[in-house]
Amino acid sequence: MPTIVAVDIGGTQMRAASYNTERLEPIKQKKIPTLASEPGGMDRLIQVIEEVWPKDGIVEAIGLGSPGPLDPHTGYLLAPPNNPLWHNFPLAPNIMKHFGVKAYLDNDANLAGLAEYRFGAGKGHHNLLYFTVSTGIGTGVIIEDRLLQGYHGLAAELGHMIVDPNGPPCSCGFNGHLESFSSGPAIVKYVLGELESGTRSSLKRDGTITPREVAEAAHQGDVLAIKAYQRAGEYLGIGVATLLHAFDPSIVVFGGGVSQVGSLLFDPFNDSLKKHVFHPRYLEGLVITRAKLGDDAGLLGARALAEMKLKP
Amino acid sequence: MPTIVAVDIGGTQMRAASYNTERLEPIKQKKIPTLASEPGGMDRLIQVIEEVWPKDGIVEAIGLGSPGPLDPHTGYLLAPPNNPLWHNFPLAPNIMKHFGVKAYLDNDANLAGLAEYRFGAGKGHHNLLYFTVSTGIGTGVIIEDRLLQGYHGLAAELGHMIVDPNGPPCSCGFNGHLESFSSGPAIVKYVLGELESGTRSSLKRDGTITPREVAEAAHQGDVLAIKAYQRAGEYLGIGVATLLHAFDPSIVVFGGGVSQVGSLLFDPFNDSLKKHVFHPRYLEGLVITRAKLGDDAGLLGARALAEMKLKP
Repeated sequence: MPTIVAVDIGGTQMRAASYNTERLEPIKQKKIPTLASEPGGMDRLIQVIEEVWPKDGIVEAIGLGSPGPLDPHTGYLLAPPNNPLWHNFPLAPNIMKHFGVKAYLDNDANLAGLAEYRFGAGKGHHNLLYFTVSTGIGTGVIIEDRLLQGYHGLAAELGHMIVDPNGPPCSCGFNGHLESFSSGPAIVKYVLGELESGTRSSLKRDGTITPREVAEAAHQGDVLAIKAYQRAGEYLGIGVATLLHAFDPSIVVFGGGVSQVGSLLFDPFNDSLKKHVFHPRYLEGLVITRAKLGDDAGLLGARALAEMKLKP
Repeated sequence: MPTIVAVDIGGTQMRAASYNTERLEPIKQKKIPTLASEPGGMDRLIQVIEEVWPKDGIVEAIGLGSPGPLDPHTGYLLAPPNNPLWHNFPLAPNIMKHFGVKAYLDNDANLAGLAEYRFGAGKGHHNLLYFTVSTGIGTGVIIEDRLLQGYHGLAAELGHMIVDPNGPPCSCGFNGHLESFSSGPAIVKYVLGELESGTRSSLKRDGTITPREVAEAAHQGDVLAIKAYQRAGEYLGIGVATLLHAFDPSIVVFGGGVSQVGSLLFDPFNDSLKKHVFHPRYLEGLVITRAKLGDDAGLLGARALAEMKLKP
């Protein structure tokens, strides 16, 4: 029975699992700390892969997921922000060389989108848009059953779409990106700015507030906190409207911590989306839903990538 | 030798041509007035197709291009603005029934993009973005050698991407679309607005000025006219930056009358694109160029659509 090995390299943990392609559940799985700033990362990665390697030794392919930017065509990490030792690093080629098995790499958001399409909320759909709304905004796009990667492998970076050229700075340094309006830090930053301008609120201006605390204040009726999520949802609706005009998917899937606040974000999002879509037909039969796979999305996406590359 | 029949239904002319799939030049071609507001359009369409029909009678497929909105999956025209008699009209099914040959439909901008990819400026590229900048802004997208159509067949409507939610109204009635900043009418409208506010210019505030006249004034050094194209180019750069982040193409092809003004539009466009792309890698090896096929793009696109559907 052919085995796929999947690896999810996260900020804090490296996870590996081996899969029989007939079943969703892994045969074996293992996780270890990533320790990105310490040397020996490659040895640790090889070790965690070896721990899930099948007894018969027969592995068809290895799928690898990591935060970007990276090049899925060459398998190189370019400049992962949390991993200073792995800049311009031949991750997939090294793994391929060590194990003598084909290895494929893509970024965590693309792979989470691919996983939701194959195994999660998007099963049965052919055109899917995936968003993770969290510390940043990551996205993955499936078009006619294929993962959108692009010429340089940098497609579907939709957290960095420009939704208002005069908007606030994004984590990447550019202005007015969707992420600079609708991510967790953007919500907090907006609250702090308004507090500084003297807006009244139950939230304290001490620089340590979290998106969750803003959500809690909103549930208690705090007007500023409600407005902060409204603004995030409005811009998310503007961004997704443009993306419907671009990709015309049949499903939009939301994952990530910020998306878990529910109606606080998604009521204004839905209003904004309806307001900004320029033809009602885009919304006919469109499913807007929550991600299903949670923490397993990274591993299942790496697995799906390997399976996809084996059977194009 | 298999023959493809291609039809381009424009606002003023219906054109038809028959192609041997081995050669770029048509075997026969013919054009007649569209006369969209007069009854009998279907008869005229059938007649022009019959005039290019091959002597041996063997046609593999018919490709049809028309202004949208339309549904390429069903072959129905939905609500073409210039053709009030063909709303919700089964164009491809009617043609298929009459000729007993498979018929495929898509919109003019998608097909011009497909034609440039197959036969024109985009030959050899696999990921292409096509823009026609004219009375409106139409776009077509090729991803990994496939035409992007979307779930409802409404993908790649990128003239209607939102580049500034507080921007001016678009022809579609919604605000802040790329078309409302960078199309020909948008350039004229900006000039008229500035003239009304008292800005000095050699251009006369008589409501009849054209984008070409604005370009001529700009070439004579008229500051307002230069600024009008600068603004159009800047927003075009913002829009294309977001689309690089979305699609990551290897080539962007510009057609349409407004794009023929050259550096007046494309110098500010290039500056804006460089300024707004959030990672320099998107620009590595990226080709930005002019369309090659001119008036033949519609016919060649309809031909390419039929060939694509025959050999998926």
